[in-house]
Amino acid sequence: MSNLYRFGIAVDRELVDEFDIVAEESGYANRSEAIRDIMRNFVIEKKTQQKGMDVVGSFTMIYNHRKRISDKLTEYQHKHNEEIISTLHIHLTEECCLEILALRGKSENIKKIADSLLAQKGVMNGKLVLTAI
Amino acid sequence: MSNLYRFGIAVDRELVDEFDIVAEESGYANRSEAIRDIMRNFVIEKKTQQKGMDVVGSFTMIYNHRKRISDKLTEYQHKHNEEIISTLHIHLTEECCLEILALRGKSENIKKIADSLLAQKGVMNGKLVLTAI
Amino acid sequence: MSNLYRFGIAVDRELVDEFDIVAEESGYANRSEAIRDIMRNFVIEKKTQQKGMDVVGSFTMIYNHRKRISDKLTEYQHKHNEEIISTLHIHLTEECCLEILALRGKSENIKKIADSLLAQKGVMNGKLVLTAI
Amino acid sequence: MSNLYRFGIAVDRELVDEFDIVAEESGYANRSEAIRDIMRNFVIEKKTQQKGMDVVGSFTMIYNHRKRISDKLTEYQHKHNEEIISTLHIHLTEECCLEILALRGKSENIKKIADSLLAQKGVMNGKLVLTAI
Repeated sequence: MSNLYRFGIAVDRELVDEFDIVAEESGYANRSEAIRDIMRNFVIEKKTQQKGMDVVGSFTMIYNHRKRISDKLTEYQHKHNEEIISTLHIHLTEECCLEILALRGKSENIKKIADSLLAQKGVMNGKLVLTAI
Repeated sequence: MSNLYRFGIAVDRELVDEFDIVAEESGYANRSEAIRDIMRNFVIEKKTQQKGMDVVGSFTMIYNHRKRISDKLTEYQHKHNEEIISTLHIHLTEECCLEILALRGKSENIKKIADSLLAQKGVMNGKLVLTAI
Repeated sequence: MSNLYRFGIAVDRELVDEFDIVAEESGYANRSEAIRDIMRNFVIEKKTQQKGMDVVGSFTMIYNHRKRISDKLTEYQHKHNEEIISTLHIHLTEECCLEILALRGKSENIKKIADSLLAQKGVMNGKLVLTAI
Repeated sequence: MSNLYRFGIAVDRELVDEFDIVAEESGYANRSEAIRDIMRNFVIEKKTQQKGMDVVGSFTMIYNHRKRISDKLTEYQHKHNEEIISTLHIHLTEECCLEILALRGKSENIKKIADSLLAQKGVMNGKLVLTAI
């Protein structure tokens, strides 16, 4: 009890309203509980990505291959073939790709790879999932 | 400015301290900015998972195959071979597996699959990444 | 016994010599036995690929991505996303790729896909493995 | 011309008949040409698999997971996680799996892995494709 710390924050009202709705739908008792939980997850996630950690995980991205980025992505991935174990490519539609990279290495290298891929024009979405081993 | 809503929350002091450190390391100007950002991500993530949405994505898990769960996981995954496009398995060590499922379907079905896999004893970690299409 | 048919063939001497060596190393009692076996496999393989058969399998190829063929391969594969379930890409070296396609469909369509991929400049090797289901 | 070697072989008549049909369908001018070609492929294939060669490739198998062999296959594959880069699993039906292993290593080790997997009860089919690098 004595360990609790109380502080105030200012958030866009629209965001607060939306947050309250999805938090309730997700089974949280109240806003505070939900915020505590996402703060905790944020800390865990960022700690996993700290420099020097040995991590494994995946990077999931969606991209439009019509933008002719396959060559660039392939070339980039080959430069990092020590960290990228293999890549699973799903041909969703004639234009749209789901590409999932299986990754292993030092967290800072893995993060750099994910950031570089995300920065490519045409990559519409990208999410890194890491676990320390 | 007028749109900002101010409220107070109570959080474990240890968590706040850790949060402040990783938030600063991640480049956030202050705690409020970081919390706003993770609230926003939470809303986006949960909205993507709302019932009836057509989604694609991945589920990444780590498990210890020594616990003899491969059979159970395989059987379970086959029951859902409409949503699970394919599974990429990385043999990390003699005991440890990284398994990544490529998924496509209705968000509620995908979420159920992820939850069921996570609930399996031996599955040490599991993270769902979804995008609406 | 009465069912045996005897015939003669003319083969390059160098090939016969090499064949005899590898056949012996592979455990065949003699040249005739080895030839009978590879004739049998050829028949099975070709029958699996006959028109109208529902087949599953893989197409394994090696290519040099420096030749900028990733875009072409991706575009081609997306046009056939009904037959190509997913593609596993291994980044062997900075230049060299091992790409494995998981395939399902009518044998004639699958064969056409394999032939077209093989015909791409830069694809150094390609082997189709099919099973009727 | 002088380099040609002529010899006779005895083959089951039924097999010869079937062979002639599929050879013609495959575009071979005559039986001799077809046999020369499959002899040549056999030599190339076996040479690739010779001891000490560095090879990459795939092993494609079909199995019925109802026979509870997933645990055994996973355990076996983890013992060879140096050669097995990753495994792509396609959930064909509720019972039937297509599993494709991406492989890299010494040819004799790769062959041993393929043979051991094929010997597992429940594995209905298995084909190794290798290329020397």
